Amino acid sequence: MGSAARGTWLSGDHDLDVFIGVPGGSSLLPALEVGRLAAPEHEERYAEHPYVHANFEGLEIDIVPCYLVEDASKIISAVDRTPFHSRYVSAKIGGLEDEVLLLKQFMKGIGVYGSELKVGGFSGYLAELLVIRYGSFIAVLEGASCWRPGETIDLSAHSSQDHADPLVVVDPVDPARNVAAALTLDRMFQFAAAARLFLEEPGPDFFFPSPPAPLKDQELREELERRKSTLILLEFGGPDLVEDVIFPQLRKAEESVRALFEGNGFSVLRSDADWHRDATFEPPGTDGGEESQLCGAIRILFELEVAILPKVERRVGPPAWEAEHAKKFVASHTAPFSGPYVEGGRVVVEVARKYIDASQLLAARGASLSLGRHLGPALRRGYNIYGGQEILKIVDPEFRSFMARYFSAREKVG
Amino acid sequence: MGSAARGTWLSGDHDLDVFIGVPGGSSLLPALEVGRLAAPEHEERYAEHPYVHANFEGLEIDIVPCYLVEDASKIISAVDRTPFHSRYVSAKIGGLEDEVLLLKQFMKGIGVYGSELKVGGFSGYLAELLVIRYGSFIAVLEGASCWRPGETIDLSAHSSQDHADPLVVVDPVDPARNVAAALTLDRMFQFAAAARLFLEEPGPDFFFPSPPAPLKDQELREELERRKSTLILLEFGGPDLVEDVIFPQLRKAEESVRALFEGNGFSVLRSDADWHRDATFEPPGTDGGEESQLCGAIRILFELEVAILPKVERRVGPPAWEAEHAKKFVASHTAPFSGPYVEGGRVVVEVARKYIDASQLLAARGASLSLGRHLGPALRRGYNIYGGQEILKIVDPEFRSFMARYFSAREKVG
Repeated sequence: MGSAARGTWLSGDHDLDVFIGVPGGSSLLPALEVGRLAAPEHEERYAEHPYVHANFEGLEIDIVPCYLVEDASKIISAVDRTPFHSRYVSAKIGGLEDEVLLLKQFMKGIGVYGSELKVGGFSGYLAELLVIRYGSFIAVLEGASCWRPGETIDLSAHSSQDHADPLVVVDPVDPARNVAAALTLDRMFQFAAAARLFLEEPGPDFFFPSPPAPLKDQELREELERRKSTLILLEFGGPDLVEDVIFPQLRKAEESVRALFEGNGFSVLRSDADWHRDATFEPPGTDGGEESQLCGAIRILFELEVAILPKVERRVGPPAWEAEHAKKFVASHTAPFSGPYVEGGRVVVEVARKYIDASQLLAARGASLSLGRHLGPALRRGYNIYGGQEILKIVDPEFRSFMARYFSAREKVG
Repeated sequence: MGSAARGTWLSGDHDLDVFIGVPGGSSLLPALEVGRLAAPEHEERYAEHPYVHANFEGLEIDIVPCYLVEDASKIISAVDRTPFHSRYVSAKIGGLEDEVLLLKQFMKGIGVYGSELKVGGFSGYLAELLVIRYGSFIAVLEGASCWRPGETIDLSAHSSQDHADPLVVVDPVDPARNVAAALTLDRMFQFAAAARLFLEEPGPDFFFPSPPAPLKDQELREELERRKSTLILLEFGGPDLVEDVIFPQLRKAEESVRALFEGNGFSVLRSDADWHRDATFEPPGTDGGEESQLCGAIRILFELEVAILPKVERRVGPPAWEAEHAKKFVASHTAPFSGPYVEGGRVVVEVARKYIDASQLLAARGASLSLGRHLGPALRRGYNIYGGQEILKIVDPEFRSFMARYFSAREKVG
C-alpha cells in the first residue's frame, strides 16, 4: 500500500507500508503475528489497533493488520480505508506519477508536507488527489494561487457532509470525509503563496532550501541585541511517546503559557515550541538518576515586548449603572492606587500588579497550568526557565537550529 | 435672568446675568451700548453675539442683549431662550429653591456641576428641571440611582426629536432641544454613583470635599516610585482665549497624542490635560519676550506602561489570499528582521521599529499632530517635554494640585 505501491514514493523518504487484510468480523491478531514473524527485530506500535514497526536495511517498515470491507464507508478502523485510497489513486494516476513527486517535494521544501499534527500540512494522498484534480504539478500551483478559505474539491461529486475546514477535499472513496481536515489555514496559504511565487520565478530552492545553520553564540547574541525584546524559554523533559500524541499537547501548553502572559499584561510578540529528541534534559535538583523515562527536551519559547511591567495596573469593572456589580467590584479592590472612577461608563480602579516580572510569573504559576495529559506531569517533574541572555547556555544543535528558524521565520510569501 | 432671579443662586458663585431684550428684527447694538455705559470698566465678549462682561464689587456681571420672541422655538440667538427658561422655572420652582441649592452644591462637590465644555456636567437649569421632575433633592438622588444610558425626562410631554445623548431632558420650552446635551456619559454616572452612595451613607464631604493639597516633591517622588510607570508631560503656552474655546481643543490634542503613542505601540494607562492659568510658560529657546500673547501653560499628561519598546515590531498585513495586497505588503518591507510568514491567514513581517523611546516619538512628531485651531499654533511656538522624574522640575501649585488629583482620581463610586 502507500506511495511505494503506486510509484509516487518520494526519494529520501524511507517508509514502506505493508497491509495484511483479514475479513471483517474476524480477529486481527493472526495478521499481527505474521508481522512479528516477518520482522523479528521490531517494535509494536499503537494507533487504533496495534501494528508492527521495523527497520529493515534503512527502510522504516510498517506491517499493519486491517479489515477487508466491501465499501470505504463501512470501515471498522481508519487503516481499513487505505486499500481503497490505493486502488483509487492507482486507477487515476497513470502517467502523472512524476507530477505527484514534484508536488510532494515542493511541499516538503516549503515545509507544508505531512498531515501529522506536528506539521498540519498536506498528506501524500491529498497531494495525489490535487494532481488528479488539476492534471499537473504546475496546474496545481495555478489552482492553489486562487484558493480562498473554504475552497472545495469534490472529485466524485458525492459530498454528503458540510465541513468548516479551510480546504475541503472530499474523499473520492468516502463522501462524508474531508481528506484535508488536518490542513491548517496557515499551511494552506503558505502553500498558495509559495505557488504564486514559484510561478513568477521558479527555482530549485523551493524544492531543496538550505536549512538554516545552528546559531553560534555570537550570532545568537547579535539577534538578541538587534531585536531588544525579551526571550523566555520554558524547558522540561519530554515523555517517551510518539509525536502525534505530544504535539497537540505542546500547542496547548504553548497557548496556556501565552494566555498566562497576556492575562497578566505581558504582550507576546511571537512564540514557538519544539521537541528536541537528542537533547539531554536534567530536571533541576535531581542527580539525573530519574532520566530513564524522559526523552529529549520540550522547549517552549516566548518573545515578549517587555519583561518588566509597571507596578500599577488598570482594572476595568462593570458598567456604573449596574449598581450591585459596581458595588462588589469597588469593595473587592480596597486601597487602590487610584480610583474608583467612572470612565467610558465603567467603574475603573488602578491597583498593585501582582507580577511585574514575566519570569517570576512563569515560575510561580507555570506548574499549575493546564498543559495536557502527558506534558503536565512531565513539567511538574522539573523544569528550567531561561530569560534573555540565559538561553546562550543551551548549546545543543537542535536548539540552535530551532532558534535560527525562529529568528528567520521566512516563508515563500511575496 | 438666571439663578439669581429665581432664588436658586448658589452662594460662592459670583455671577449675575442681566438681559436687555429688543424686538426681533431690530438691532442689538443699542442694547450693547447700554451695557457699555452701565459698566464703564468692562470687557466685550463674544458668544453668538457680543455682550458686556464686567466685574462689579466682586460680582461677575454679564450684560447680554437678546431678542424678544413670542415662542422659544422661534429664537434667533441661543441667549433668546434664557427668558423662557427663567419664566418656566420661576413658575414651577416655588418652595423648592432650597432643594435646588442642595442639588447644585452636591453636584459641585462631586465635580459634575457645570455644562461648560471643561466639565461636561449638569447646568444650573438642568438641576432645576430635575428638582421639578422628582420633587426634592433626595428624590432626584433616588431617581438618578436607577438611571441607565438613554434615560429620558420630558416634563411637557412634547418631545419632537430623537437624541442619542446619555441623558435626554427635553426642554419644556423647546420640544426639539435636549437640555442635557452637554452632559457626558461619565459625568452622568459619576453623579448616579455618588447619589447611591449618599443615600446609603450621607455626609457633608459630598457637598464640601477637601481639595487635595498640592504634592510636595517628596510625595510626587513617592507616587512615581510606587506606580513604576512612566509619566510624560507635554507643556506649552496657553492662548489668551476663553475655556469653552480651549477645552474642546485640549481634549482633541490629548486624543491626538494618545493616538500617536498607541499607534506606535506605547500603551497609555491614563491621560489627563489641564490649563494652568497662573503658570508661567517660557518657550524653550526664547528670551521670554514673546510671552505677552500667552496665557498660562497647557499641560497634557500621559502615563505609559513602558517608555522603551523593543526594536523589533510586528506588522500584520493583508490576508494571504489577497494576492495583490500581499505582494505589495511584502515588497514594502524589505530586509525584515523576521518573515514574511503566514499567521492566522495573514501575512506578517517583523521589522525595525522607528521609535523605541516614547519621549523621542513625541519630540519628533508632536508638532505635526492635529491639535486644534488655536492649540496647534500655540504648541508650534515652543513646548517642553518632561519624562519621568523630570516633572519634579515643575513646581507651580496648580500643577502640583493637578498631579494630586491625577494620582488619587477618587470619585464617589462604590
